[in-house]
Amino acid sequence: MPQPQLDEHGRLRHLLTLEGLPRATLEHLLDRAEQLRALSHNGTRRLDLLNGRTVINLFFEPSTRTRTSFDLAAKRLGADVINFDIASSSTVKGETLLDTVHTLEAMHCDAFVVRHKESGTPEFIARHLRSNCAVLNAGDGNRAHPTQGLLDALTLLRHRADFSQLCVVICGDIRHSRVARSDVHALRTLGIGELRLCAPESLLPDAAEMPGCLLFSDFDAALRGADAVIMLRLQKERMEGALIPSEAEYFRRFGLSSERLAQAAPDCLVMHPGPINRDVEIAADVADGPRSLILEQVGNGVFIRMAVLQELLGK
Amino acid sequence: MPQPQLDEHGRLRHLLTLEGLPRATLEHLLDRAEQLRALSHNGTRRLDLLNGRTVINLFFEPSTRTRTSFDLAAKRLGADVINFDIASSSTVKGETLLDTVHTLEAMHCDAFVVRHKESGTPEFIARHLRSNCAVLNAGDGNRAHPTQGLLDALTLLRHRADFSQLCVVICGDIRHSRVARSDVHALRTLGIGELRLCAPESLLPDAAEMPGCLLFSDFDAALRGADAVIMLRLQKERMEGALIPSEAEYFRRFGLSSERLAQAAPDCLVMHPGPINRDVEIAADVADGPRSLILEQVGNGVFIRMAVLQELLGK
Amino acid sequence: MPQPQLDEHGRLRHLLTLEGLPRATLEHLLDRAEQLRALSHNGTRRLDLLNGRTVINLFFEPSTRTRTSFDLAAKRLGADVINFDIASSSTVKGETLLDTVHTLEAMHCDAFVVRHKESGTPEFIARHLRSNCAVLNAGDGNRAHPTQGLLDALTLLRHRADFSQLCVVICGDIRHSRVARSDVHALRTLGIGELRLCAPESLLPDAAEMPGCLLFSDFDAALRGADAVIMLRLQKERMEGALIPSEAEYFRRFGLSSERLAQAAPDCLVMHPGPINRDVEIAADVADGPRSLILEQVGNGVFIRMAVLQELLGK
Repeated sequence: MPQPQLDEHGRLRHLLTLEGLPRATLEHLLDRAEQLRALSHNGTRRLDLLNGRTVINLFFEPSTRTRTSFDLAAKRLGADVINFDIASSSTVKGETLLDTVHTLEAMHCDAFVVRHKESGTPEFIARHLRSNCAVLNAGDGNRAHPTQGLLDALTLLRHRADFSQLCVVICGDIRHSRVARSDVHALRTLGIGELRLCAPESLLPDAAEMPGCLLFSDFDAALRGADAVIMLRLQKERMEGALIPSEAEYFRRFGLSSERLAQAAPDCLVMHPGPINRDVEIAADVADGPRSLILEQVGNGVFIRMAVLQELLGK
Repeated sequence: MPQPQLDEHGRLRHLLTLEGLPRATLEHLLDRAEQLRALSHNGTRRLDLLNGRTVINLFFEPSTRTRTSFDLAAKRLGADVINFDIASSSTVKGETLLDTVHTLEAMHCDAFVVRHKESGTPEFIARHLRSNCAVLNAGDGNRAHPTQGLLDALTLLRHRADFSQLCVVICGDIRHSRVARSDVHALRTLGIGELRLCAPESLLPDAAEMPGCLLFSDFDAALRGADAVIMLRLQKERMEGALIPSEAEYFRRFGLSSERLAQAAPDCLVMHPGPINRDVEIAADVADGPRSLILEQVGNGVFIRMAVLQELLGK
Repeated sequence: MPQPQLDEHGRLRHLLTLEGLPRATLEHLLDRAEQLRALSHNGTRRLDLLNGRTVINLFFEPSTRTRTSFDLAAKRLGADVINFDIASSSTVKGETLLDTVHTLEAMHCDAFVVRHKESGTPEFIARHLRSNCAVLNAGDGNRAHPTQGLLDALTLLRHRADFSQLCVVICGDIRHSRVARSDVHALRTLGIGELRLCAPESLLPDAAEMPGCLLFSDFDAALRGADAVIMLRLQKERMEGALIPSEAEYFRRFGLSSERLAQAAPDCLVMHPGPINRDVEIAADVADGPRSLILEQVGNGVFIRMAVLQELLGK
């Protein structure tokens, strides 16, 4: 894939995917997120770094969680945020997506945060911009969710500073998961020791798409000795498509129960991008248990999004 | 009822209900609202007391009026406000209420303003918080609407400084009214002289629930000599439940007409929490008349909500 | 029409229509918009002129484009903006429009930005205000869209400083267009040389309503020698009403193709209020071509709205 997201000096111009981003770029964003956390913990929650800047949330899929995280990140940097309501917008009146984008650009916005069910929409927008507005991918189809990949990497790093000896399992509908793809790109770029992807046979990705990853359909085998496990949300519509059996059967084979977790390393960390389906892909007691980093992930998400916005919009 | 809303030093930690709150706490909030009004009238409409703080509106029932009031209150104190859109949120995707709350807490918010049709939801949230976030009840079921109780008390106080000799009537569907309950708690705690509750027989509360109040089903008798009357909005769905007769019949027996108002004290004040049903529970000419404090109530609502936010979030 | 929008000193109190506004008032607003543009281009995007002021968007018709423009304008002047959500508001619960307005006024707002499908609604609101709140018409029925008229005048002025020799064509559903009316008022007040209105016979206005304008039903004739052409959006519902033939037939007779544009002056400017229907009223290559000012119009819209807000709310 080409890298329209880097400018001629190799600086981040958009954040569309983590695929192909240099390790130094990732580490720079992670470092910046850590600095922002430190400021926040010392009581500086609002910075004025992006005063006068305008961030537009263009969410074509419903998502309050991610949108709220971006919203807070932008506001805490001093930017103005417009939540562009797709349902009542000109796009509905038949205006093309690009006309909507160019119209908003003409109002002098500085960033689009884009979520769309079609893979490639953020990149499509980025390729057709007429200003130096930045595009941040907040999730496109099953392709990428780069801020999720970064926040998962940050969360893991804070607990396991040395990635080189680490074995991480990602379990769920890998084939259709943008979270899985961005996690794979982040963790591999940052030099993770071993990366195991586990899914029902029908939901495994093509091996060629995930070089350097080990594929499993036996969750118990995948978990053995793992240092961290990232559970994916079960999309209920998969069941309708007959790609997975019942919820109960799914939990029996691919759910993370405390018994199953016992097969991993004794201090194995548990992650999940949320929102969780309790007792479907993860047992409630595991989600709420001492190894769960699920809420830490949420908190790190705001710092990561602040870091990305600062990198892209700060002068 | 226990008081999870006070901390170990007796300071307000959440505002869930006025029931059981000490008179000093109420008076402190009313005084603070008055100070904020004075600042506003002198031209200081925006304060920076809550810069960097995040207030999240969690409205599970539609309400633009109350939500806008809280929104303005928070913004005028410098806080950032997130209107969490329940309709497109993860709660709809099957996430539990508490998972939503914990997720938002993990993003470092400082207050939840909660409206829910189920009584007790704000308290339920307050009991399960994992941070020192504050919960403000913006109306739960038929249980409590504490900022309405405070703003009604404030409105009355500004016109009748001595509550001890005052006779106040509340008329409408007392049984199902959170406004009535919070008004009763506020006025009784502040030492109101006489409190009369008037409703159709089917909509009267249990006498035991309202100690110290006089119950009436004859509005003319209830009004006799009253110094102030608070009319409640008729919820149209009560009629479907056959608990009240037609609108016309309701107005004939329980509507506040100017003829009926003549039976009260000559300078009897008229209040209503809004939105009003003109000529259903209150005649249009009374709502718009010289004794009506309805719009003053609205204005006081913003100052009360600022006072509560400042008390709960100010350091 | 009376001028409730001017105060006793001839200063702008509301912006309801451009009809009857003095040329000096229009020029003052255009100058101010230019100053705001200059500040913006020098990097001052956010001013604190309206700190503590509250602007309420009251949109009874869906419009993200215009609402976003007003939203950005208000925020860039430092004001707080409330997007009053009509769908979930008390207006839906049966509250009258004026009760909603008076309630919001009681919360001390400073301006209402009103869009409504009924002509005259902004004026109706302005006549019944109880505070010194300002009303900005963001489009009412087919009557007026004054900020559009101003921004179109500004856009044209920046390219053709001398209006006196200029020939401008407006083409589309003139009869039902508030944009056409406000453009006519702006351009005639500012001394445009010649103004031609072109529409299918069934969509022409009464000649008496547009004094000083030339009416055409032959677009080729109207275009001959024109210096600028403003294309109007085709409202699809007109076709349902059998007032116009098919889209293809409409484009053949009234669509702006590059061939047709060749009949105008060689440097004829092309404008459109948006959102455009590509290849219905305007060919895609013309909309995107070198003479198109469509996106400039959008950018100017923000500066015009800032200028109006500053004029109405600045002390």
